[in-house]
Amino acid sequence: MRGYGMIKTGQPGWLEKEKPTPGPLDAIIRPIALAPCSSDTHTMHGGSGPKENLILGHEAIGEVVETGDLVCKFKPGDKVVVPCVTPDWTGRYIQEGRYTAHDNHMMGSFKFLIAKDGTFAEFFHVNMADANLAHLPPGIAIESALMTVDMMSTGFHAVELAEVGYGETVVVIGIGPVGLMAVAGTQLKGAGRIIVVGTRPNCVKIAKEYGATDVVSYKDGDIVQQVKDLTGGSVDKVIIAGGNANTLAQAISMVKTTGIVSSVNYYDAADTFTIPAPVWGLGMANIDIRGGFCPGGAVRIEKLLNIIKYGRLDPSKLITHRFDGFEKIEDAFLLMDKKPADLIKPAIFIKW
Amino acid sequence: MRGYGMIKTGQPGWLEKEKPTPGPLDAIIRPIALAPCSSDTHTMHGGSGPKENLILGHEAIGEVVETGDLVCKFKPGDKVVVPCVTPDWTGRYIQEGRYTAHDNHMMGSFKFLIAKDGTFAEFFHVNMADANLAHLPPGIAIESALMTVDMMSTGFHAVELAEVGYGETVVVIGIGPVGLMAVAGTQLKGAGRIIVVGTRPNCVKIAKEYGATDVVSYKDGDIVQQVKDLTGGSVDKVIIAGGNANTLAQAISMVKTTGIVSSVNYYDAADTFTIPAPVWGLGMANIDIRGGFCPGGAVRIEKLLNIIKYGRLDPSKLITHRFDGFEKIEDAFLLMDKKPADLIKPAIFIKW
Amino acid sequence: MRGYGMIKTGQPGWLEKEKPTPGPLDAIIRPIALAPCSSDTHTMHGGSGPKENLILGHEAIGEVVETGDLVCKFKPGDKVVVPCVTPDWTGRYIQEGRYTAHDNHMMGSFKFLIAKDGTFAEFFHVNMADANLAHLPPGIAIESALMTVDMMSTGFHAVELAEVGYGETVVVIGIGPVGLMAVAGTQLKGAGRIIVVGTRPNCVKIAKEYGATDVVSYKDGDIVQQVKDLTGGSVDKVIIAGGNANTLAQAISMVKTTGIVSSVNYYDAADTFTIPAPVWGLGMANIDIRGGFCPGGAVRIEKLLNIIKYGRLDPSKLITHRFDGFEKIEDAFLLMDKKPADLIKPAIFIKW
Amino acid sequence: MRGYGMIKTGQPGWLEKEKPTPGPLDAIIRPIALAPCSSDTHTMHGGSGPKENLILGHEAIGEVVETGDLVCKFKPGDKVVVPCVTPDWTGRYIQEGRYTAHDNHMMGSFKFLIAKDGTFAEFFHVNMADANLAHLPPGIAIESALMTVDMMSTGFHAVELAEVGYGETVVVIGIGPVGLMAVAGTQLKGAGRIIVVGTRPNCVKIAKEYGATDVVSYKDGDIVQQVKDLTGGSVDKVIIAGGNANTLAQAISMVKTTGIVSSVNYYDAADTFTIPAPVWGLGMANIDIRGGFCPGGAVRIEKLLNIIKYGRLDPSKLITHRFDGFEKIEDAFLLMDKKPADLIKPAIFIKW
Repeated sequence: MRGYGMIKTGQPGWLEKEKPTPGPLDAIIRPIALAPCSSDTHTMHGGSGPKENLILGHEAIGEVVETGDLVCKFKPGDKVVVPCVTPDWTGRYIQEGRYTAHDNHMMGSFKFLIAKDGTFAEFFHVNMADANLAHLPPGIAIESALMTVDMMSTGFHAVELAEVGYGETVVVIGIGPVGLMAVAGTQLKGAGRIIVVGTRPNCVKIAKEYGATDVVSYKDGDIVQQVKDLTGGSVDKVIIAGGNANTLAQAISMVKTTGIVSSVNYYDAADTFTIPAPVWGLGMANIDIRGGFCPGGAVRIEKLLNIIKYGRLDPSKLITHRFDGFEKIEDAFLLMDKKPADLIKPAIFIKW
Repeated sequence: MRGYGMIKTGQPGWLEKEKPTPGPLDAIIRPIALAPCSSDTHTMHGGSGPKENLILGHEAIGEVVETGDLVCKFKPGDKVVVPCVTPDWTGRYIQEGRYTAHDNHMMGSFKFLIAKDGTFAEFFHVNMADANLAHLPPGIAIESALMTVDMMSTGFHAVELAEVGYGETVVVIGIGPVGLMAVAGTQLKGAGRIIVVGTRPNCVKIAKEYGATDVVSYKDGDIVQQVKDLTGGSVDKVIIAGGNANTLAQAISMVKTTGIVSSVNYYDAADTFTIPAPVWGLGMANIDIRGGFCPGGAVRIEKLLNIIKYGRLDPSKLITHRFDGFEKIEDAFLLMDKKPADLIKPAIFIKW
Repeated sequence: MRGYGMIKTGQPGWLEKEKPTPGPLDAIIRPIALAPCSSDTHTMHGGSGPKENLILGHEAIGEVVETGDLVCKFKPGDKVVVPCVTPDWTGRYIQEGRYTAHDNHMMGSFKFLIAKDGTFAEFFHVNMADANLAHLPPGIAIESALMTVDMMSTGFHAVELAEVGYGETVVVIGIGPVGLMAVAGTQLKGAGRIIVVGTRPNCVKIAKEYGATDVVSYKDGDIVQQVKDLTGGSVDKVIIAGGNANTLAQAISMVKTTGIVSSVNYYDAADTFTIPAPVWGLGMANIDIRGGFCPGGAVRIEKLLNIIKYGRLDPSKLITHRFDGFEKIEDAFLLMDKKPADLIKPAIFIKW
Repeated sequence: MRGYGMIKTGQPGWLEKEKPTPGPLDAIIRPIALAPCSSDTHTMHGGSGPKENLILGHEAIGEVVETGDLVCKFKPGDKVVVPCVTPDWTGRYIQEGRYTAHDNHMMGSFKFLIAKDGTFAEFFHVNMADANLAHLPPGIAIESALMTVDMMSTGFHAVELAEVGYGETVVVIGIGPVGLMAVAGTQLKGAGRIIVVGTRPNCVKIAKEYGATDVVSYKDGDIVQQVKDLTGGSVDKVIIAGGNANTLAQAISMVKTTGIVSSVNYYDAADTFTIPAPVWGLGMANIDIRGGFCPGGAVRIEKLLNIIKYGRLDPSKLITHRFDGFEKIEDAFLLMDKKPADLIKPAIFIKW
């Protein structure tokens, strides 16, 4: 079968590979909607280490084509929403109940790109199908469903880590697609003021539609000072959905002495966080610093789909560029890699 | 000074009493907006035991007229929002950090009606003014601010107790003013489906505007069965903001085996909760049953005011009947007592 | 193969059944240590509905004799500790992360006695072996390990539900084996005063060894009043590990207005909880009422085994009666059913 | 009156100052037991900025000599335990309920040394006496009570931040007096394995008595590698109670991908935390980093006193050097400054 990914580090392209086969708990899926993500291009450029002959992609809506003997809830022909994080639910960290992104080791529940080929293929494999696939509900636009599997789940995870409460003032640093979902998720948690840090005009526009009340730009000077000037002090929570290793110290500088900084940014292996001790109150401030990867599985996605179903949020606004047909994966991927100023999220829709 | 309240149990009327004086931490307030509450009429009828010569009222916006020597943040002339719950912040239960409604004993932080006269007076007293008064922010309608001090704080407390999460299905039983705020607060926590139990047409209309997706009526049969039919099973959370002692067992019957029932209803002293063991899974279901009284203090109210300020919610829709002038407290109170079908919340606005 | 259980409701006896076979994720175990529990005798008497031809037993240490094709961590000959709760880890309630005792429905993770035969057999079946079996660690007495699988896990669950904190005053009602583990678990959470409610002398003796500071007996009058007299008021937390449906209202009466009552008692289907509204503060007390069934799986048990390994607790004190040989299951079971005054927990040790 | 402290930065000595006077809520205390702390010597050396003419000391047991008009619970002659953290309980961060160490700004609840003179004086001042003083309970040794006010409260705060659970493996870095209390507090939370990092023989000896199972020394090489070798992987929680800015990255390196690092270390203003991104999983590990200052107030201390009262812990083992008489404050302070190898904690006992 054909798939699109990385021939080797730095070299994207089409690949010919064996069609995957399901184990007894698994399913094989044919994609009907796909979205490239900066994690895909990051991987292609070697961001998670040298790799070769790897199909990329981890955001997908698809149709079941084959299931293992022990799969009960799905059969060929079912339309499904595929979480980007598909845990082995028996993993020891999951049994402990804190986070599901790490089944047996760090990011262990993220199978695509790391443990196996991704979703940019004629067929792809999903482990523990009964637990990791959600039926595509009738009446939900495929574009919206596609945005739940990573963008919404990740952005909302940032909000959950930050424990956003009623009426709080929250800063969201970075308003790419994940940051925009963090803004929407912050509004959906009853926050008051939402200050976003970003510059691209179309992102700023959508951030406001999703609930942002103030916009701070890197171009206008030190973002910490700008937030302090806006608020006359510190804020309740800071969410990091962009930036670089320096952003962490900036976020800690903005938050109140009993606040929470949550980060869902993926930092470079070469990055080093450098935090002057006074920023963290010489260790005496009760500022929690949290980060992490989004939870996985079917139930998570079903809850997010409910948010769409009952009209609480339309995440399809993120999709700025649409492509039709399997062959257009390449165009969409290369666009994602180039990141033109008007791009938020590309999506590919496939009819077989 | 004059005040309106209960001459004795069952007999409302005007009272003549001494103007209160502030201790060193306290303030004396002149009301500029007031709202009667069913707790006021309930108290008048003897619901919290026999009382006499008591000024009623606990929801108020006012103007500071006098402050104690140690008050720093307020001065005569300041317009203030007065929480209905004004803790002694040094109380032992508050030090423990779980709930602020009980400073040193059950409901100890609720001073009006219980420990002293209420707000339906030419002047009323607020303890620990710096901690318990919030400045009325510019740009917030006085009607909306008035709804924060009890209705919004109590309704939102129910949602906080229920730990409503993204995409959850939540039942709100009772859609009087507190229940309506619970609906709004549930939507503001990112719930998916919100099923309300209630019948009065204007309440149903506002419930939908605040986010309700389904309406169940007592008049159409057993509400437990109706919820089961609607959902094909159980729901994530149930909030009780009305009903009677039987409602608790109904709520437990509706919720999933790992769910939460939260109640902010004020039950009668003569009530008995009767819960068949199977409803609670013979003790083996991990269903939490929580209840309680709303948190108090300035910071709580400031957060709620922020929700209004940033346009997340307009609670003034609750006010269906408006009265002008101090003398109209009586009409408003008697209307509250009569509870005509079109009443949600009356409010009195006073110019001195 | 032979097994011991219920021929029909009310009639215990030996049964001849097919040896179980493993699915791809499962294991077949031969028991080497077993303990009857009051849930077994309760089931025999019809407490969970009419049943017949059912092998009883759910507490076991064993040896793996056969594994499914997908089992990685265990092989025949391995000595294993078998949790009484063995979830299907893909279940929807588990994905939500609150409690693991209920995989897809109430108590769904409790497979023995309900979904299949129990452990009182020559061979028994364990689902999802990799996730649900723990290796018996070297250096841990088999008696102690045997007490982790239900007694310690359940008693400690009560403490976890109660969120026992440093220096708190805690009441434990019922000092059978689960209550005694709740006492030990309460001490291990740093409680201060631990008041137990019970009468049997050997239980009282062990309760004190496990950390009880005060003993209250039903025989000396109203237990609520006795606790109030002892403490001069209320207590921080109350744990219910015995008693009957009336105990719940008693527990709520003892606890402070911001306290927690946690119950791990198994109530009768014919029971009704009757709670006068004033006991729960007319709904205004922030008293949480929690109940439930113990968490399941390997990681839970491994943590409990660590407590023994590092000398924090010796749960083998619970075992008052020892039996040797598979045939003695009957004697041990009938002793459990009779419950003589000196019995806490019987155990059977089997050499094949 | 006389007091001991810093004449100026780097110059300790006796000072003559005005006897403090109480506000209406405050009390004046005469010390009967005192303990110098490294925060006192750190302040003397300028660690929290240049200061002069400041009485040091913040750990004390005393006798009330004078109270403000609004103080109800204390009268002259009462023996009291004085928390080192004495919040203004009306503070906005306290109203939010997360942490009490910061009333209105960072460490705002720590009044001694920062906002006013400390406890090394003939008389010292305590704000909000009713909320911040605990009666010295009969039957509790003064030495033990003295260890609650900072050492035990701070060490236990580290354990609370780390959310230590049953059977967990915990590393405690630093086994000075605070670290030793963290070890004891970890055992009191039901941990399994407790690995301490430290070298001084008497500290190691007491660490083992308080529950440490393994000892790692800086002198034997990289502590991260040693912990990994001991455990064959990572640990559940890491508590930092010593070390320097590099310790934070080491702690993060030791903890599991869903673990918690908690720090109660006071870092230098010149320190910078340098954390390579891979150590924190490139932001994808769900490792929480928490730090902070111990909670304050009477109820906190009463709970800790209960732990002593009911025989759960004897914190007086920390006191290695005893001095008698007010004049010996100087010797004790200079000893604390010199930190000989056999010193854990000095204490001064005063008879007037």
